[in-house]
Amino acid sequence: MNRFMKIAVKEALNGIKNKEGGPFGAVVVKDGEVVAVGHNKVIATNDPTNHAEIVAIRTATEKLGRFDLSDCEIYTTCEPCPMCYSAIHWAKIPVMYYGATRSDAERVGFDDKYLYDVLTGLKKDEKLRSEQIERDECLVPFEIYDKDQNKTLY
Amino acid sequence: MNRFMKIAVKEALNGIKNKEGGPFGAVVVKDGEVVAVGHNKVIATNDPTNHAEIVAIRTATEKLGRFDLSDCEIYTTCEPCPMCYSAIHWAKIPVMYYGATRSDAERVGFDDKYLYDVLTGLKKDEKLRSEQIERDECLVPFEIYDKDQNKTLY
Repeated sequence: MNRFMKIAVKEALNGIKNKEGGPFGAVVVKDGEVVAVGHNKVIATNDPTNHAEIVAIRTATEKLGRFDLSDCEIYTTCEPCPMCYSAIHWAKIPVMYYGATRSDAERVGFDDKYLYDVLTGLKKDEKLRSEQIERDECLVPFEIYDKDQNKTLY
Repeated sequence: MNRFMKIAVKEALNGIKNKEGGPFGAVVVKDGEVVAVGHNKVIATNDPTNHAEIVAIRTATEKLGRFDLSDCEIYTTCEPCPMCYSAIHWAKIPVMYYGATRSDAERVGFDDKYLYDVLTGLKKDEKLRSEQIERDECLVPFEIYDKDQNKTLY
């Protein structure tokens, strides 16, 4: 078995053994070495964003002292939900290996597939009502930011 | 102007004044009162997941001591990226008000629209290569989790 995925599975098993959250684990790898591991901690931390991939990415960026993980790869026991897929993007990670799928996650009670279906337009989001207001006022920070010549891009 | 969006805009302005990250702010509201505010802190914390909505949701769940924000609303100065849209879903927030759009964000240099286009299938993701491996081994934690009768659902 792939040695990094083996570590990710072990993380997932540890997480559920201690009732910390869902059965998910992830590992961030750089130059063939583990930089950070993570498992789902939604229950343990009361934080709905603490999915395995987010935990591993946050730990990796903290360890490396930079928000850019473009020299890393991520291994995750399940296809990332859209939150985690996007987090991988924002971290600039270029390669991802995943094990189970969004449908496997759905079968054990998670909304990953629902969210993908909403975002791909296959389904109307019945759980979140959205309304646009005050666009003009909200654009003010954008304009100031856009003119700032000394900003750090990310 | 809507009083909660006004606070969100102020948050965004504070964030860029201090060069903490992008020009985004968010507010979580419960029963007409502010529970938590947040602005983008990607640069300040070296954390690519520290978007305004995530910061506000994490602060709110910490404050309330629960991962379920189904009695809250969120105000955000920009249409959430797919990471934040999904985080709002995972936090079970049923109502969202947003100001600027994914295209406004794109105009000042952010990949929000790119990510939506990838997730909706309009665009192939040229920035992340994905590969499925070791599904069977990754399903083992799922099976254990599925059989656990005493787990906390989220």
